[in-house]
Amino acid sequence: MKENILITGGTGFVGTHLVEELINQGISPESIHVTTLNKKPHPFLDKVLPETNFHQINLTEPEPVLELFSLLSPAVIYNLASFSAPGLSLEKKSLTLSVNTNIQLNVLEAMLAHTPQARLLSIGSGTEYAQSPHPLTETSPIGPRNPYAVSKATQDMLAHSYHTSYDLDIVRVRPFNHIGEFQARGFVIPDFVYQITQEIEKGVKDSIHVGNLDVRRDFSDVKDVVKAYVLLMSQGISGEVYNIGSGIDISIQELLEKLKSFSSIDFPIIIDEDKKRSGETDVSVADISKIRALGWEPTIPIDTTLKRIVQWWRNQ
Amino acid sequence: MKENILITGGTGFVGTHLVEELINQGISPESIHVTTLNKKPHPFLDKVLPETNFHQINLTEPEPVLELFSLLSPAVIYNLASFSAPGLSLEKKSLTLSVNTNIQLNVLEAMLAHTPQARLLSIGSGTEYAQSPHPLTETSPIGPRNPYAVSKATQDMLAHSYHTSYDLDIVRVRPFNHIGEFQARGFVIPDFVYQITQEIEKGVKDSIHVGNLDVRRDFSDVKDVVKAYVLLMSQGISGEVYNIGSGIDISIQELLEKLKSFSSIDFPIIIDEDKKRSGETDVSVADISKIRALGWEPTIPIDTTLKRIVQWWRNQ
Repeated sequence: MKENILITGGTGFVGTHLVEELINQGISPESIHVTTLNKKPHPFLDKVLPETNFHQINLTEPEPVLELFSLLSPAVIYNLASFSAPGLSLEKKSLTLSVNTNIQLNVLEAMLAHTPQARLLSIGSGTEYAQSPHPLTETSPIGPRNPYAVSKATQDMLAHSYHTSYDLDIVRVRPFNHIGEFQARGFVIPDFVYQITQEIEKGVKDSIHVGNLDVRRDFSDVKDVVKAYVLLMSQGISGEVYNIGSGIDISIQELLEKLKSFSSIDFPIIIDEDKKRSGETDVSVADISKIRALGWEPTIPIDTTLKRIVQWWRNQ
Repeated sequence: MKENILITGGTGFVGTHLVEELINQGISPESIHVTTLNKKPHPFLDKVLPETNFHQINLTEPEPVLELFSLLSPAVIYNLASFSAPGLSLEKKSLTLSVNTNIQLNVLEAMLAHTPQARLLSIGSGTEYAQSPHPLTETSPIGPRNPYAVSKATQDMLAHSYHTSYDLDIVRVRPFNHIGEFQARGFVIPDFVYQITQEIEKGVKDSIHVGNLDVRRDFSDVKDVVKAYVLLMSQGISGEVYNIGSGIDISIQELLEKLKSFSSIDFPIIIDEDKKRSGETDVSVADISKIRALGWEPTIPIDTTLKRIVQWWRNQ
């Protein structure tokens, strides 16, 4: 029997790249099932997955999740679905916390009920860590600083508790910033690239509006990140947690300068105080030696990733 | 102007002892306000607090919490309200997580909106910690093992994030097991004492039914714990977290033997497998040197506490 792979939130930013990666690795599209909250035509996935493999369900409700697990009996579950914008989470604190907690709980309960032998990938975040000496290892103190980060730490703790209490086969990850095609506005790189390609290059605006440029973050290409996810589902140790990042910190200022250099138009940078977030950490960079030991490496240089993103937005 | 003290969940187990302690320390009952979910006659508090100082509100809804903070402008807030039974949390996982997350979020938001200069005591739990070398210090790894423990870690992280992001004056505590009068059944000591005093001593049953007796825990008298809470509201460092416990581990077996010795009736102990919880830690004991340095000490011997609890249940 062919084993089903379930990707919650599979039509989102990371999910789209993960489906592509699985197909590139020779997985049959017939076995890849994705959940989606709002079924709308998807520019890429509609071409590669059978229509019956899209499951339009609300993962914050327990019953549809139980039904889906009963129907598919997935052997492998990538739980990508998440309210995932740290900035917006400051406006929608309660929603962020309840959505992410309930999705995780419902998936874990459905797994316990219907597929207790399956393997789950639980997606935490590099934002779970407190501001600590860098780079951050998997044993660095937890101390999230915004509701999104708290919700990811809660998901991470729930995954850990179901592993320890019920012996479920769960691998946990803490990805740091990742970027690529399909990422929506509300994140720093799409926000910058949108303004450059859709506004400035089209003559709608003549300057870019940005928040805090001084903070340093660890950026990876989403295509490298999904490779790490797939690797961990075969090589990761059950119950363990793995950082995923580049291991290199770069300032938002440097990223913006790179993007600026890719445009033929010169434009001024306007710092909006109200785009700055209170309580942000200065630096966040991952120690990736634990996943490196499994044979994973970031492979795509940041300039290549940024150029690809700019080109993708120009084609929108 | 007299400063208002707000105690959420103030008619509960710990709240009742806290009110008594504040009044013992000379605080005017006029300034002590308590919230309660279901206004029903309270055997102790109705005698000591003015009727207008009971506020019947649902803390999981934002609006009534905002209104209450606007009305009272509390200078000091003890946020005791919580879904607090680890055992029951295994049956009501989603409720436990949503109630505790929302209470904390609503209190923090109301504080931010109306009393940004107030001091808040945020109640975490010793159950937040992972199974680690003992005793557990405040820097031991976080790794909660049941939904209640996850929800307390989430509350703790939210408190931390509001301190770091908005500079709110918040002291966090991680109390270990605490026991005393007014504690409801659903916790180990009331469950034991109820069976002994209300069933066995009254001839209704002839044996006691218990879960796992092997685990070792850190038990304090609630009267010592509320003294620690009051002390921390004047001496605790903003943003810091403090363990509260006895620093001594004792097995559930030993506690049961003590309780048995206080009864004139001898009875057999029946171990119910279904009362055992999966994934429980073997040992949990606090390192209390951080709060000791502020001058707090546990003062009441465990035998004294247990005898007082037995007597209280006999009087029910």
